[in-house]
Amino acid sequence: MSGTLFLMPNTLDFGIADAEVSLHAVLPLEVIHTAARITHWAAENAKTTRAFLKRVDAITPLSQALQSLQIAELPRPPKGGATPKDGAGQQQAWKALLAPLRQGHDMGLISEAGLPAIADPGAMLVAAAHAEGLRVQALSGPSSLLMALGASGLNGQSFAFVGYLPIEATERAKRIRELEALSAKQQQTQLMIETPYRNEALLQALLANLRPQTQLSVSCALSLPQGWTRTASVAQWRASPTTMPDKLPAVFSLLG
Amino acid sequence: MSGTLFLMPNTLDFGIADAEVSLHAVLPLEVIHTAARITHWAAENAKTTRAFLKRVDAITPLSQALQSLQIAELPRPPKGGATPKDGAGQQQAWKALLAPLRQGHDMGLISEAGLPAIADPGAMLVAAAHAEGLRVQALSGPSSLLMALGASGLNGQSFAFVGYLPIEATERAKRIRELEALSAKQQQTQLMIETPYRNEALLQALLANLRPQTQLSVSCALSLPQGWTRTASVAQWRASPTTMPDKLPAVFSLLG
Repeated sequence: MSGTLFLMPNTLDFGIADAEVSLHAVLPLEVIHTAARITHWAAENAKTTRAFLKRVDAITPLSQALQSLQIAELPRPPKGGATPKDGAGQQQAWKALLAPLRQGHDMGLISEAGLPAIADPGAMLVAAAHAEGLRVQALSGPSSLLMALGASGLNGQSFAFVGYLPIEATERAKRIRELEALSAKQQQTQLMIETPYRNEALLQALLANLRPQTQLSVSCALSLPQGWTRTASVAQWRASPTTMPDKLPAVFSLLG
Repeated sequence: MSGTLFLMPNTLDFGIADAEVSLHAVLPLEVIHTAARITHWAAENAKTTRAFLKRVDAITPLSQALQSLQIAELPRPPKGGATPKDGAGQQQAWKALLAPLRQGHDMGLISEAGLPAIADPGAMLVAAAHAEGLRVQALSGPSSLLMALGASGLNGQSFAFVGYLPIEATERAKRIRELEALSAKQQQTQLMIETPYRNEALLQALLANLRPQTQLSVSCALSLPQGWTRTASVAQWRASPTTMPDKLPAVFSLLG
C-alpha cells in the first residue's frame, strides 16, 4: 500500500534573528507528532528542514535519528516561476521524488515558512502525486497570507493572492493601478508579498500610485512578539507614515 | 490601556455528525491557552462558541465559568453579503461590539469553522477595530481554503477565492466559464465553496461547463478522518465520476 504525502506547515520565523517562536504557538500538537514520525521528506531547503526537525525533536522525540532521515530537495523552479503546467521533463524530476510513497512510506512536503505548496514551488510535487493517484493530506498550520487577510479587516469573502509585483518602476506602477481597478470592480481584496529588504520600496510605490480612498493593510512579522497589522486609507497612510522594517516578512493587501 | 482583538480559529468539523476531531489536530497549544483565558467574545454564533469553549476547557480549564463569559453575536450581514464598505449605521453596530476592548479586556472573534473574518462577516468587526486604532492579532489555525489549495497541487503562487457561485443555472454556467477564462489567462487558481447539500449540483455544473483539459480539484471534509482531495482534468472526472457527499463541507478549485 502506498504512503500519504503530508503537507507539513513550518513556522513563520524563517530568517529572523533573535525571534524564534515556540512551535506550540503555530503548530497543533498532533501535527508536531506527525512531523516526528515522518522519515522521508521533500523540502524547499534541507538545512532549514533539519533545523525545524530539531525543534520538533525537543517536543516529541523523532522516530529516527535526524541524520538517518531522508531529506530530498525540490528541483529549482524554472525562471519566471513554476506552475503545474510545465513540460514533461520537469514532471519526471518531480515524479522521481515520490519514490518513498510508492514504497509505502509516508512523506512530508515542507517549505521554509508557513504552508507548503502555497507561494512556493511545492505544488508541482502535489500535482505529480495526484497524477499517480497517490494520497495527499494537508495539515493545519500558519498561513501568513490568511492571517494577514483576517487581521486586515478587508473583504475576506472575495480575495486574491498575486505574489510579487514587477520590480521595474513603470511596470510596478501599472500593475498597482491594475490591481486597484480590479479590486474596486470586484470588491476583491488583493494580497501581495515582497522580499523583506524591499518592503519599504513597495510601500512607497503603493502610496504613490493608489487612490487616496483605497484601503491599504500591511501585516508584518505575523506570529512573532513584534508582529503588527495596520489598516488605513492611503490618505491616512500618507498623512501618518509607518516605516517598514527591512528584515521582517510582510504581507500587503489592498481594497479599492 | 486597550485590549487586543484576537482572531480565534475554530475547528473544521462544524455540523458534522459523529466526526469530532481533537482540538490538538488543528489548533496550536498556545492558541488553546489563549482561548481559555479570553473572557469576552464576538461570535458568529453563541451556541457553537460555547461548544468550542467546552472543548477548550477539557484541555485547559477556562479562566472563568463558561456561563459567566460574555459572548456577543455579530449583527446579521445585509442581504448580498457584508463588506467593510457598508454604511455608517451598520458601522455603529459593529463599533458597539468593541466596548470590552476599550475597557481593557482582550477579546476573541470566532466563527463557526476555521479562521474568522475569512468567508464570513467578521471582517466588519476587524475593520471597526482598525478605525479606532485598536490592536488586532491573528492566530494560527486551520483554513479549509488554503488546506484545499495546498492539497490540490494547482497553482499556489497566484490564486483567488470567489465565495459562492450563482444558483440559477444560466448565471452559474456563465460564471463558471468566466472564472475558467480568467484562470487560464492569469494562470490563477480559482477557489469556491458551496452549501454541502448542493455539493453534487456544483460538481455537475462544473463538469458540464468547463473545458476537458481544465484541472479541477475537490477537497472534502478536510482535517477529518474521512477527508479526501481529488485533482484531475475535467475529462478524467467525467470518465471516472466521484459522487459528492451531501453533508460534508467541500472546497472546489479550478485552473484553466
